[in-house]
Amino acid sequence: MINTSALKQVEYFKGLSPKEIGQVLAIAGVKSYKAGEMVFAKQDLGDNFFIVKSGHIKIFTTVGPEKRKTFAFLKKGDFFGEMSLLGGKVRSASAQTVEDSELFVISKKNFKRLILENPDFTLKLLHTLVERLNKCNQEVESMLFHNILGRLAAAILDLSKEKHTKPVKMAINQSELAQYLGTTRVPVCRAINTLKRSGVIDYRRGELIILDQVRLKSIAGNAS
Amino acid sequence: MINTSALKQVEYFKGLSPKEIGQVLAIAGVKSYKAGEMVFAKQDLGDNFFIVKSGHIKIFTTVGPEKRKTFAFLKKGDFFGEMSLLGGKVRSASAQTVEDSELFVISKKNFKRLILENPDFTLKLLHTLVERLNKCNQEVESMLFHNILGRLAAAILDLSKEKHTKPVKMAINQSELAQYLGTTRVPVCRAINTLKRSGVIDYRRGELIILDQVRLKSIAGNAS
Repeated sequence: MINTSALKQVEYFKGLSPKEIGQVLAIAGVKSYKAGEMVFAKQDLGDNFFIVKSGHIKIFTTVGPEKRKTFAFLKKGDFFGEMSLLGGKVRSASAQTVEDSELFVISKKNFKRLILENPDFTLKLLHTLVERLNKCNQEVESMLFHNILGRLAAAILDLSKEKHTKPVKMAINQSELAQYLGTTRVPVCRAINTLKRSGVIDYRRGELIILDQVRLKSIAGNAS
Repeated sequence: MINTSALKQVEYFKGLSPKEIGQVLAIAGVKSYKAGEMVFAKQDLGDNFFIVKSGHIKIFTTVGPEKRKTFAFLKKGDFFGEMSLLGGKVRSASAQTVEDSELFVISKKNFKRLILENPDFTLKLLHTLVERLNKCNQEVESMLFHNILGRLAAAILDLSKEKHTKPVKMAINQSELAQYLGTTRVPVCRAINTLKRSGVIDYRRGELIILDQVRLKSIAGNAS
């Protein structure tokens, strides 16, 4: 069951008026997913738009059976699934839950109605697409002009953006970091050790601690 | 001077009604640029949105004095400059004319008004951003999972998309191809020779001819 207060908790709706939240409320369903469940797979026909109500979603692509590249981790208030509703009909990437999650589900028809009738919703959508495009362009730049160390530093900064502990700590294993960079564990493991030895980060038992944010940013260079 | 018929020739406006074209007309200026002139540079404060009226624009980024990556070539009807109006305030890339060009110039304030008041304009903007994001994600995937040969094949297909000659011919020199891939001339020159030797393309005096589109697509693989 959806109610207005649940929607108000969602960051995505914070800029919207109660009336506008009501509009979304009227057209969204809620669906629950177990940890590790696929929301959709690359190349699926895309008919729905999703907003994360609770939990954690990974957006990724696979090439062949073993190569995987994580594009983003999404949390409460983030949205996804707009790409195939606004462009090609099939999903350009896969979406999978990282933990038990609940999603607001909005049909293609209602999504288009929201865009046409609700300029605040549309502005939010535009801002997010521009932010994602910016991030993607920076990643291309970073891959071309930086080595794995710079890219790892940029990825750590990116993933830690919303952690508010001091020093910044986060739980992430080496395979996840490797997938975030679209590479394998060995070079990532080497780069982690370099950052550890130079006192920029600490890393043990799957927990990464940023010890020197300034130097991490400098290593990330333009890539951050 | 702008008139409605000039705007109607612009692909971008083809989906808009005469009334809507009039709305754009009322708020756009026109500016002329010589070949090679900078429209804006990366890190400039961004205050305007541009639509290509005539000519040819290159969008690119530079890292250090020598490294350059071309993101796109834009032609009549394409737009650019929306990124810094919808996100960070500074330009995320540079824009330069390839030949003498004319641009419709729309101020930030009028651009926001267009979005809020003209849903067709906004839908077009959303579609284009999704298309660019898709292309960027594919490029990241391609860089991670394909070698220079596959990436070159994908770039040739991308650049030739709107050529209607049979066989497809295009004028492009090796430096431009290298910048499009964000790499240097030597590996691109080697890859061109590989494609030539296998009869997939011909290339001489700055003119590239696609001889075997099917095999070119197969070499591009997922990267196209």
